[in-house]
Parts: sequence; C-alpha cells; structure tokens
Amino acid sequence: MHNRRNFLRNSTLGIAAAAGLPLIGKAAVATNSISAAEGMDFPIGFAGFSFVRFDLEKSIAMMKRVGVTNLSVKEFHLPLNSSQETIDGVKKKLADAGISMYTVGVIYMKSKEAVDQAFAYAQKCGVNMIVGVPNPELLVYTEEKVKATNIKMAIHNHGPEDKLYPSPKDVYDRIKDMDPRMGLCIDIGHTFRAGVLPEKAVVEYKDRLFDLHIKDVTAMAKDAKVIEIGRGAINFPAFVKALRKIKYTGICSIEYEKDMNDPLAGMAESVGYYRGILKGS
Amino acid sequence: MHNRRNFLRNSTLGIAAAAGLPLIGKAAVATNSISAAEGMDFPIGFAGFSFVRFDLEKSIAMMKRVGVTNLSVKEFHLPLNSSQETIDGVKKKLADAGISMYTVGVIYMKSKEAVDQAFAYAQKCGVNMIVGVPNPELLVYTEEKVKATNIKMAIHNHGPEDKLYPSPKDVYDRIKDMDPRMGLCIDIGHTFRAGVLPEKAVVEYKDRLFDLHIKDVTAMAKDAKVIEIGRGAINFPAFVKALRKIKYTGICSIEYEKDMNDPLAGMAESVGYYRGILKGS
Repeated sequence: MHNRRNFLRNSTLGIAAAAGLPLIGKAAVATNSISAAEGMDFPIGFAGFSFVRFDLEKSIAMMKRVGVTNLSVKEFHLPLNSSQETIDGVKKKLADAGISMYTVGVIYMKSKEAVDQAFAYAQKCGVNMIVGVPNPELLVYTEEKVKATNIKMAIHNHGPEDKLYPSPKDVYDRIKDMDPRMGLCIDIGHTFRAGVLPEKAVVEYKDRLFDLHIKDVTAMAKDAKVIEIGRGAINFPAFVKALRKIKYTGICSIEYEKDMNDPLAGMAESVGYYRGILKGS
Repeated sequence: MHNRRNFLRNSTLGIAAAAGLPLIGKAAVATNSISAAEGMDFPIGFAGFSFVRFDLEKSIAMMKRVGVTNLSVKEFHLPLNSSQETIDGVKKKLADAGISMYTVGVIYMKSKEAVDQAFAYAQKCGVNMIVGVPNPELLVYTEEKVKATNIKMAIHNHGPEDKLYPSPKDVYDRIKDMDPRMGLCIDIGHTFRAGVLPEKAVVEYKDRLFDLHIKDVTAMAKDAKVIEIGRGAINFPAFVKALRKIKYTGICSIEYEKDMNDPLAGMAESVGYYRGILKGS
C-alpha cells in the first residue's frame, strides 16, 4: 500500500460512482454502491468515442452501469454548432445521472474557423479543456485562443499511420515552447502501437500531460488491435506506477473501441481491470 | 512483482482464455486474445449458480465473452440423474468452447441416497471433486464415499443465516480429523457476512481448502448485498496475498449473484477487477 493512496482514499475521491439504474434493453434493479470509486487515486472517465453507435441516453445508462462518472463529450452527442440551450440540456441530462462533462473532444480542426468553433463550443459547455487535433499550421492560432479564453488544449496523438501526430513526441516537440496551457492528451494505445511505452511517455511529457485515453492493444505493432484492458500487451501496473510518480491529477478516460455495437461487457471488464490495477498496485 | 508470479507467468497458466465469439443477443465479431489469462497465477472460473437464469448455450457464450474457462457445473445445466450420454454431450459442448468442467456443485445432500447420487454423478462427469453441502449427520457416510471413489468433497459454507455451515470454521471443525480429501469450498462473500475475513480463513483452513467462491458484498453484515467485485467491502489485495502465501493451487470461481437476469456486465467487471488485482498486487 502506498501512503499517498491511503491518504487519498480517505479524502475526496470516494464520492463518484453510481446508484441503481436501468440497463440497456431489459431493465434490471441494480443497487450499485457509491464505493465504486473508493480506493482509487485516479478518477476514471470515458472518451465519448466509445459510444459512437449509441445515443446519449444509452451511453449514460452504460456509464451508470459501470459506475463511471466523467465523460469527454463527442460531437455526435452534442454537435459543435449547438445552441446554449441544447448544451445546457445535455449537461443537465449528464448531471442528473451523476456524470460530469469534464472536457469535449476529440475535436479535429483543419481551419481557423474550426478552431474558433471549438473554443466557442468549449466556452458554452463550460469546460476548461479541449481534447483536440489542430492541424500543425494552426497551432499558433490555437495558442492565441488558449490565451484569450484560458481554455487548455490537450492535443491527441493517433498512431503510426497518422500524418499529423503519430506519437506524443510529435505533439510535445511542437508545443513545448508555447503557452503552458498547450499540452497533450496521450492515447496510450496509439502510443504503444507507435513503439513508445506509455509508462515512459507520461513521465517524459508530464509537464504538459492534461488528459489520457486509456485502452489496451494486442501488440506493439502498427496493425495491433484494440482489446479489453488487461488482455493486451500494455503493462498497466507500470503505467499506473508512472502516473503516481508524476502525481498525475487528471482523469483516466477509457476509450473502448472493440465490439462497438455491443461494448458494455468489454467496457465493464476494462473498467474492472483498471480499478483492480489501481487498487492492487 | 513477486518472483513466484513471474515464474508462473512463464509457465503453463497462460493458455486458457477465449477466442472470438458470438454474443448474447446481437452477434458481434469479437477477436479476444488468448492472452487473457496471462500473468495470472490463479485460474479464474465461474460457479454455475451465476447462470441460474440462462441455458447452457447462453452461459457458455457469456463465459467466452469474458474469457473464463473453468466451470463448476450446476444441476440446472446438467441434472443429477443424467445419463452418461447426456453428460458426455454437455462436456463436449463445454470442451468445444474451451471450457473445463472442473467440478460439480453446489450439490445439497440430505439423505444417503442423495450422497450416492452425487458421487455417481461426479464419477460419470469425470471430475475429482464435488462442491457440496452434505447434512452433518451424513459426513461419516460422505467420507466413506470419498474413500471409495477418490473423489474429494469440498463443503460449501453459506452465511450467518445458515443452520448447517454458516462459516468455514463450522465446516472445518467437523471434517478436520476425517480423511484429508474431506475439505472446504470457502464462499468468501458468505464468510465475510459471517464476520470472518476471507484472507484469514484461507490461511486458517489452508490444509483443507479445495475450492473458492469469489464474490464481493457491501458490508460485513448479515444483510449485506452481493455486488460487483471491487465495489464492496472485501479486501481483495489482502485476499490474493493470502492465497499466494498458502500457495493455493485451486480455481478462483466467481459466483456472481447480482442482476441475475442481465449479469454479463457485472460478471465482466468482476472478472476484470479480479484479474487487475492478480496482475497488480
């Protein structure tokens, strides 16, 4: 047991998690404990893309079922051109389910207009961070918007096939001398496929690490497949140890991209495994 | 990392787990890795009662989905008076899915005839252990059958409300001077509800510990509820540490008794959490 964890366990992190809830499809009476998040030093979230085949209501039901209370909202649940009224409605639905919209994204930005839209959207959503992929030639303009709005930009890396940001280093090298609110959302699956150990990347880029997309992949190879967390090749005890070492203060958002038509079981297994690692390591 | 675990990781235990499979309801192409059980020093199983509301085919599909390959078969999937042909058919269905029928039970025995039937059934099933609840007055007769068949009897404890065996001590005290093939299947949820720490019970009764029913409960109280593993009050890192200390060689069978009409998500979360504890601790 780490003393730091014991300290945190007794502090504010045990509040999250979910109460009883209807399920996808057939309803069942579930009486989940609010202790789901107890003993966990890093809050778990979901990257919205995990729910790309489901509407907001079904997505919320799945999050409640697995007791996860932080969501990075994707535009298919809340379009980028939404009115304030629409945004407030979605935020209320989430809040009523005990879910926090802690960021938006991943938002792709290929023009100044797209950057403008993303920041206006984030402002209306009331979030202090965007997970985004601004084209490299827009980074200076993005930095101006960060300064003007005080909204952080967490740039998301894809994998070795990506032309813009195949690994965290490709993000970091471009933003390391910019405003400190320009940073990274490290996607550990893409990072691993790019040949970089996530446990090394989070340490190397810790000063700009704002968000994480947590997943597992079958191998350190470009064509590796995503898989339930714990069944793949990523060393999660080493990864969590690294997060503790750097005193990461963000969310660990699971991005589940397998069985996307029927993801609940894999999501639940992934959430369970990650909680087990957090508890056991 | 424990050296013992690193040793085991490189030995025979990584073989289990599941390949791609159809799901309950809507089919999905799942390409699960065979690495699901890698890094785990204790094989995970399911107690058959978890599937009480499902036929064998749906139960198998759920086990494959979560990559668990050991099953304690309950009589609703294979009646106690089944013919050898029926038994062989069920074993083939399981084997075709990569699942091992490692034991049968829980079987309740209130008469000599019931004891006879249980042992005949176990013989026809080809298992070397019965998880059972023989009435105390039948223990001597049960021991005779153990000696005659060389089939072990793992007596299952229920909780504080049980008149026969409310906690592992109630089993142990009755069998400790009997044949060494008379032993325990400790149900850690019932044990915890009876006020006994599972991590202490497995050490105390280690010489007769043959099987485990793994679950979590909301509190150390008679009326505590079962809940997804990791959300409740049982200290799983301490429990797994105790199993390592006693060099437990059996299966850790999850008995999932929540949301029994729609258990897959909770099973998956439970399996994931237990794997995370095994990996991380």
